Amino acid sequence: MTEAPIGLADVADRVDARLHDLFADERAEWAAVDPRLVEAIDELERMTAGGKRLRAGFCYWSWVGASGAVDGNDLDDTRIIDVGAAFELLQVFALIHDDVMDDAATRRGRPTIHVEQADRLTREGWRGEPRRYGEGVAILVGDLSHVYADRFLSGADRPARAIWDRLRIELNLGQYLDMRTAASGEVTRETAQRVALFKSALYTIVRPLQLGAAVAGRADDALLESLEAFGRPVGQAFQLRDDLLGVFGDTTRVGKPVGADLRDGKPTELVAVALQRATPAQRRLLATIGTPELSDQGIDDLLTVFADTGAVRDIELRIDSLIRDAIHESNRLAFPEQVRTTLVDFATYVAARNH
Amino acid sequence: MTEAPIGLADVADRVDARLHDLFADERAEWAAVDPRLVEAIDELERMTAGGKRLRAGFCYWSWVGASGAVDGNDLDDTRIIDVGAAFELLQVFALIHDDVMDDAATRRGRPTIHVEQADRLTREGWRGEPRRYGEGVAILVGDLSHVYADRFLSGADRPARAIWDRLRIELNLGQYLDMRTAASGEVTRETAQRVALFKSALYTIVRPLQLGAAVAGRADDALLESLEAFGRPVGQAFQLRDDLLGVFGDTTRVGKPVGADLRDGKPTELVAVALQRATPAQRRLLATIGTPELSDQGIDDLLTVFADTGAVRDIELRIDSLIRDAIHESNRLAFPEQVRTTLVDFATYVAARNH
Repeated sequence: MTEAPIGLADVADRVDARLHDLFADERAEWAAVDPRLVEAIDELERMTAGGKRLRAGFCYWSWVGASGAVDGNDLDDTRIIDVGAAFELLQVFALIHDDVMDDAATRRGRPTIHVEQADRLTREGWRGEPRRYGEGVAILVGDLSHVYADRFLSGADRPARAIWDRLRIELNLGQYLDMRTAASGEVTRETAQRVALFKSALYTIVRPLQLGAAVAGRADDALLESLEAFGRPVGQAFQLRDDLLGVFGDTTRVGKPVGADLRDGKPTELVAVALQRATPAQRRLLATIGTPELSDQGIDDLLTVFADTGAVRDIELRIDSLIRDAIHESNRLAFPEQVRTTLVDFATYVAARNH
Repeated sequence: MTEAPIGLADVADRVDARLHDLFADERAEWAAVDPRLVEAIDELERMTAGGKRLRAGFCYWSWVGASGAVDGNDLDDTRIIDVGAAFELLQVFALIHDDVMDDAATRRGRPTIHVEQADRLTREGWRGEPRRYGEGVAILVGDLSHVYADRFLSGADRPARAIWDRLRIELNLGQYLDMRTAASGEVTRETAQRVALFKSALYTIVRPLQLGAAVAGRADDALLESLEAFGRPVGQAFQLRDDLLGVFGDTTRVGKPVGADLRDGKPTELVAVALQRATPAQRRLLATIGTPELSDQGIDDLLTVFADTGAVRDIELRIDSLIRDAIHESNRLAFPEQVRTTLVDFATYVAARNH
């Protein structure tokens, strides 16, 4: 399944409408103070366009299930759509800051904020260093997104907020570990798995599911644990697919330059498995990972190594196995059967997507 | 008065103890996951040392007054000390990101995070660009501080959280306006005042006072408005003193290099007033503001212009006048007299401080 399931698309539309209202309100409020402030809000809105709204989707359907319903039609879902909007803004905050850290030129097919704003300084003939100005604006717009995200949680009770606070700490610490181990070259399979646990399994799948249940007033340990048991393998499959797309994906669909993960030396399980299985000659090629000046031919040679070592096949088999685990765990969720089916559809989608 | 008043020092000690406990707990928790995560917490703790805890102090005493007490001794002040810790962590978040945007080398007398971490990459022989790595770590540690700040507000009710959310938006938008107008050279007196309103009057004084009252359960419009009427002139005086210290202060005491504000072209009222009063020759000197390569002699020449135009005297008179306004407004606060006296002491201190 490479098309988003209908239950995900519906939530995405509702979340997008909420975000649209937020930006319209904020623009009106701050334009009255100083018209230049609107520029920051415009940049933020530009970056929210086009996400898959995965976190909002998992959160929404867990909330439906925890409410004992089979869909959201008979429920007042204002609050959970707010939480979905919070997840999207938090994700945009993380992406904007990530793009500064990686010096990524494009995101979701558009120029990143720091690149766009550095260009603006030059274009307008303003003073200062373009790179510093561009990155400064990106840091601030990211910070602003973080605050708006958090504001959408203002009605949350303590159990919901505890999950939200925890996932934000995991997100930042996971990101630190990622950057730190990429720099020091400590790309072991264990480290790659730990980073993936923080940044994908927990942040993208498990915590959204748990927060949905908590907003429905069901933050009991048994439900939270069964959601974690279902969400962890889905999150791992999501990350492994992401790693494959980062290396083999189509730039147009993925929205960021393919090969960048290899030039940056991003620590992935794909690389760790390839290293374990490589011949001495293949090892020498793999040692070029993390070299910014890696040529397109160098990238092609690495793709061949990933295929020839069997690393790609190994990762694809692991994705299949993780989704089977998730389907097995889904049977333990104390949710109506239709909701369990919807969540399994989502899991299958994130594991098989092509962007 | 250049020594911190006793009521401020007491609150600062309590807040410092709370922060110490936070870091100890977080270190223990995350060291068990991966020892490298502790590095991020260590860097954050390093940056929290040595602040004046002004926001915590204003917030605390407003809470005491709104609770109808004359001091905090008979009250359970756990929650308001948490809020004080939140303000300090939010301030550290803002400073860390600020220092990246300004490329400041030192803060509170110590190397800034991005500089320290860029050095680390070089020292350890890790791969990547030192500047990008250092700034990346600083962005993340700042983001982590933002989350910890926010977590200290988890028990806050809706009125308190609305103030907290608003002040964070004002902080980020104020910072954007500051950077944006410095780059485009639009340093009018009106713009400088607007930036100062966001970054100092509201963020440093008014919102902490209002949040203290809200945590005491007194978020009624009348009290919030009288706190704003008292806090605005104090905040303006604070900012004007900051601008003078940024130009005339002693580097050792202020903890950041004096002259940096002039090299960065920071839009201050001091500069705006000097521009209004300058002769053509003085104007030519003032036009060098915002030139990174400005020499020490160039800085000295500018100091002479600030004095000769009467801009310094004008700003000092405005500070005095603002504090008189604040004292006048303090009489309207529905707080016990002793608390009003304490808050006036704080106001006098922030307007006269030498660091």
